[in-house]
Amino acid sequence: MLFNRKKREEMSSSFNLLNQINSPDDIKRLKPEELVSLSGELRDFIIDVLSSNPGHFGASLGVVELTVALHYVFNTPYDRIIWDVGHQAYGHKILTGRRDVFHTNRKYGGISGFPRRDESPYDAFGVGHSSTSISAAVGMSVASSLKLEPRQVVAVIGDGALTGGMAFEGLNHGGSLKSNLLVILNDNNISIDPSVGALKEYLLDISTSRTYNKLKEDVWEFLGKVERVGPKTRSVVQKFENAIKATLLKQSNLFESLGFRYFGPVDGHDVVYLTKVLNDLKNIPGPKLLHCVTIKGKGYSPAEKSQTAFHAPGLFNRETGERIVVNTEQPLPPKFQDVFGETLVELAEKNPKIVGITPAMATGSSLNIMMEKMPDRAFDVGIAEQHAVTFSAGLAAEGLIPFCNIYSTFMQRAFDQVIHDVALQNLHVVFCLDRGGLVGDDGATHHGAFDLAYMRLIPNITVSAPMNEEELRNMMFTAQKDGMGPFSIRYPRGRGVMVDWRKPLREITVGKGRILQKGSDIAILTIGHVGNMAEIAVEKLSVDGISVFHADMRFVKPIDTDILAYVGQHFNTVITVEDGCLPGGFGSAVIEWLNDNGYNTKVVRLGIPDQFIEHGTQTQLYTYCQFDIENIYQTAKKYAKVKGKITTARF
Amino acid sequence: MLFNRKKREEMSSSFNLLNQINSPDDIKRLKPEELVSLSGELRDFIIDVLSSNPGHFGASLGVVELTVALHYVFNTPYDRIIWDVGHQAYGHKILTGRRDVFHTNRKYGGISGFPRRDESPYDAFGVGHSSTSISAAVGMSVASSLKLEPRQVVAVIGDGALTGGMAFEGLNHGGSLKSNLLVILNDNNISIDPSVGALKEYLLDISTSRTYNKLKEDVWEFLGKVERVGPKTRSVVQKFENAIKATLLKQSNLFESLGFRYFGPVDGHDVVYLTKVLNDLKNIPGPKLLHCVTIKGKGYSPAEKSQTAFHAPGLFNRETGERIVVNTEQPLPPKFQDVFGETLVELAEKNPKIVGITPAMATGSSLNIMMEKMPDRAFDVGIAEQHAVTFSAGLAAEGLIPFCNIYSTFMQRAFDQVIHDVALQNLHVVFCLDRGGLVGDDGATHHGAFDLAYMRLIPNITVSAPMNEEELRNMMFTAQKDGMGPFSIRYPRGRGVMVDWRKPLREITVGKGRILQKGSDIAILTIGHVGNMAEIAVEKLSVDGISVFHADMRFVKPIDTDILAYVGQHFNTVITVEDGCLPGGFGSAVIEWLNDNGYNTKVVRLGIPDQFIEHGTQTQLYTYCQFDIENIYQTAKKYAKVKGKITTARF
Repeated sequence: MLFNRKKREEMSSSFNLLNQINSPDDIKRLKPEELVSLSGELRDFIIDVLSSNPGHFGASLGVVELTVALHYVFNTPYDRIIWDVGHQAYGHKILTGRRDVFHTNRKYGGISGFPRRDESPYDAFGVGHSSTSISAAVGMSVASSLKLEPRQVVAVIGDGALTGGMAFEGLNHGGSLKSNLLVILNDNNISIDPSVGALKEYLLDISTSRTYNKLKEDVWEFLGKVERVGPKTRSVVQKFENAIKATLLKQSNLFESLGFRYFGPVDGHDVVYLTKVLNDLKNIPGPKLLHCVTIKGKGYSPAEKSQTAFHAPGLFNRETGERIVVNTEQPLPPKFQDVFGETLVELAEKNPKIVGITPAMATGSSLNIMMEKMPDRAFDVGIAEQHAVTFSAGLAAEGLIPFCNIYSTFMQRAFDQVIHDVALQNLHVVFCLDRGGLVGDDGATHHGAFDLAYMRLIPNITVSAPMNEEELRNMMFTAQKDGMGPFSIRYPRGRGVMVDWRKPLREITVGKGRILQKGSDIAILTIGHVGNMAEIAVEKLSVDGISVFHADMRFVKPIDTDILAYVGQHFNTVITVEDGCLPGGFGSAVIEWLNDNGYNTKVVRLGIPDQFIEHGTQTQLYTYCQFDIENIYQTAKKYAKVKGKITTARF
Repeated sequence: MLFNRKKREEMSSSFNLLNQINSPDDIKRLKPEELVSLSGELRDFIIDVLSSNPGHFGASLGVVELTVALHYVFNTPYDRIIWDVGHQAYGHKILTGRRDVFHTNRKYGGISGFPRRDESPYDAFGVGHSSTSISAAVGMSVASSLKLEPRQVVAVIGDGALTGGMAFEGLNHGGSLKSNLLVILNDNNISIDPSVGALKEYLLDISTSRTYNKLKEDVWEFLGKVERVGPKTRSVVQKFENAIKATLLKQSNLFESLGFRYFGPVDGHDVVYLTKVLNDLKNIPGPKLLHCVTIKGKGYSPAEKSQTAFHAPGLFNRETGERIVVNTEQPLPPKFQDVFGETLVELAEKNPKIVGITPAMATGSSLNIMMEKMPDRAFDVGIAEQHAVTFSAGLAAEGLIPFCNIYSTFMQRAFDQVIHDVALQNLHVVFCLDRGGLVGDDGATHHGAFDLAYMRLIPNITVSAPMNEEELRNMMFTAQKDGMGPFSIRYPRGRGVMVDWRKPLREITVGKGRILQKGSDIAILTIGHVGNMAEIAVEKLSVDGISVFHADMRFVKPIDTDILAYVGQHFNTVITVEDGCLPGGFGSAVIEWLNDNGYNTKVVRLGIPDQFIEHGTQTQLYTYCQFDIENIYQTAKKYAKVKGKITTARF
């Protein structure tokens, strides 16, 4: 801590300009040419802090100049800036009064890694999931019209986020309104992995060699020249001039098709030019789009070279760009995502029907392993969860077996498609929900708190959560067996518990849990990885002489009714543990079944309470939510006091 | 029935061609010119049947020629045709072996009003919700490539459905692939209400006077002429020819921007020309879009004139086009949607912060009442539920109070936006969920089965379901009070129970239910309109001498814990009734609370079981799901046998 403070003080000396910026008003006092220096300092500050306190990296470096220019030109917070996704908003945070707390970024009790309305008036709209900014900005600009408050509303959205369908919905609506609205397309041709889809090609096309703007100029010049070659040509020109103008100027651009006046592409790293352009755009009414070309990781060469790795690189050596891997004496268990990625390839090698799908999370989900080995059978469909699910349904309708990997929190985007396109048609799609449960530093927007609850409402679907690496492998093996319908497998962010995890694959009986320990004083039913914490608690309880029945239920749906009946018959109290929301979740399913089947065993439910949970390490958050080892232990101890079973028939 | 059969026989005589068509193979045997007659007969058949057996009307008439042409040209069912939404697929059903059962359309036990994979091999993909067809088609075309089965895959999508974000996601992905795929844009400039948004203007622009195609031809011709005027011009031309070609042919069209080769617009009612175009397109590889201009309700002038009314007109006089309103002696209670529509205007007149939002359901939700009276404050955002919710969040972030009206089943599309953009930020958005519960004829794709369950998982949100018109009005009045956060109000399709419903507005205490009757033999807790059925059951029970405690709970979240504690203390058994799914639903919330608070009252839950429910009248489906009056009555009678309360403390 002392070191950190000292280091920060040392750093301070090189931030002469930045240290004077306590709010955007201070930026407005600078001369235009000073903005270049400020941008440089801001970039260095981000690199310094991020090298020792991990977070999202490349995105914020890419918009340093844009951030400075926006706060220079616009009257924030009266004018609204909405950062799509928001992991590129570190510069924005630093310039809007949070420089001195920026070292607490993403830490428990510290500032959030995303803009939040409750953190600063400069954070006009809370973000985290992709592609929301245009819709929110349209709402704000309409409100500004209705309230006769002539504010500017600006949405900054990346080319990756633009592939999300709701961005298009927002453009389609916003483009039909007269409200004042500026969408800035931050086009760096990458989201986390390189952007995909037709849109990417289109943007690349208009932003490279033969740009749209150049063409527009050329054609104007051409028309002028043709006019000069003679009267004959002149008449021809007159005939077509308007048509061509209309086409080129009104229709030749995707965004103009949608009612937005298109400007650009401009160099997103020329801060002085940006301030001029933004100033001009302030005075043009209606919906407009500024196409800004930037480089993700700009100004830090290791990040420019390895953009995917430096999206969120963890700790790194500021001087060398080397990412710091914590060495341990013993080998670590693998990440669950890698178990998924490796096992999928193993299964796909044997079963030609298997295909893999990710919506723009190739690296994060480790589907990139399959994409490299079997490029024809693995698909990154862009930030497009809805499409990912219905695309999978289309594949399954033709007899293939898609493994559709979507983070739990993002699967919320495709809830309807899971119900309407997959479950209703009973199609054999395997959903692999990575980041199920509390995810840690990303916080409230990203916790996978709800999937067990929202999946179990849906008819026809198998809802599972394996406890460890071996179980995940076996669950995937089971899920690809012929005759399975919709099948959901959720697992957490981070590492598992088994160093030696490449066990032979075995089929699991759907709807059957595993009894890990028999006992008589108290029953603990767990779902998913929390079973590992419960196992440790069970050991501690055994030291205390408490005999615990512990089952890893594996499935929320269909639930293991043999185990539930046994528990109902033999225990007064059963503790359920889940890394998921309590309302409607796994514990709720247990209560439903016990109630419906005439058991009055009390269920003590441990899990995520009915509130949004902030950021912190996963361990801190398990403790906050009271389903960590200690809480499982204490709860079991408390309820195990009443020994034996008092049978009370109720009807 | 006799009359129906006789009438059908009479009708048959005028369907000489159609009666020979038992599968698309029979169409293929016709001469091209006979397709015109077949189209006429098919149109007449649809008009005849629909006039006496209500269903979706205008959409199917608009695609009669397209349907005939598709089955003439393509090798169905080997080739796949996916009808977006699917209410336009009546002609398709009639031509693919379902002519003789078409009179059972949408009836209990009859064929579905939408394509379904389990109904016919010609129904390549089940539909109902909008905008799914392109994603499914991309999946099928990729599968066809992987399986080396050279089939054609065709998605037919309306211009309204194209505004849904997932259609764009599908285009973006499909346009980047080489797979063979034909998207047919059925552009009639209307969904149910006239289409909205920038896309509509764009399509209108390219499909009217100065069409894209005409322009393309003109420019080619122009370039030719310029070449002829002389060598000077020639060099100028050479310089720019490629650039202009590239722009006009590759970039000047929204769809070409997304990697689709664009063809059209063509007249969607010229069946012979359509067969030629489709035949040509079969041989062009990769992703293509055919822009087909049609008239909704084509060939039946009352429907052409009143397109919104004839989207699904109910019974009508085939000769006059007059819609048949069943006259009753007594005035009928209003539709819930009209109570919403009228009350919203009443509230908005007093509270200037109120605005109204609908995603393309202006008429269906009755928001059209506000749109007419307060056009500046009511917004139809297109088929775009995700945008509708986040647009509302943007409005709320600026201090307005949006009433965002979305059918329960369509709100599934915006589940993430409710969580991430509204609830997480605790924004004051009022969600009015029309068509909550079983909707009747539209069937499995459209039942609002899940909303109570999926809404109650979400922190910060108030989840309510008023029992009748007066309660709906009071709930809306309550929801717009300052200081409320996210607030959901759900009500069913159809009419309420109060003829005299315009009662003065009164505030409801959030989280407080209404005790409708005190009693001691059994408790019934209801949520929403099912309370009216329970009231009748309670009367019957009282005749039998059974004393019933009945509370209309009003809120699923926060739930009335005073009532629950009372029930827990005084009853062995409580019956919960809900027009919603049993897993995780209202009854589940009751069990959770009783369990968590140490009561062992058994909860008998009536509601929608854990399966997808087919079509039928609402009354038939209530009975099927066993929460109709008779089932409530019988269940209460069964469990009321055990009188008094046996207190059994469990801990």
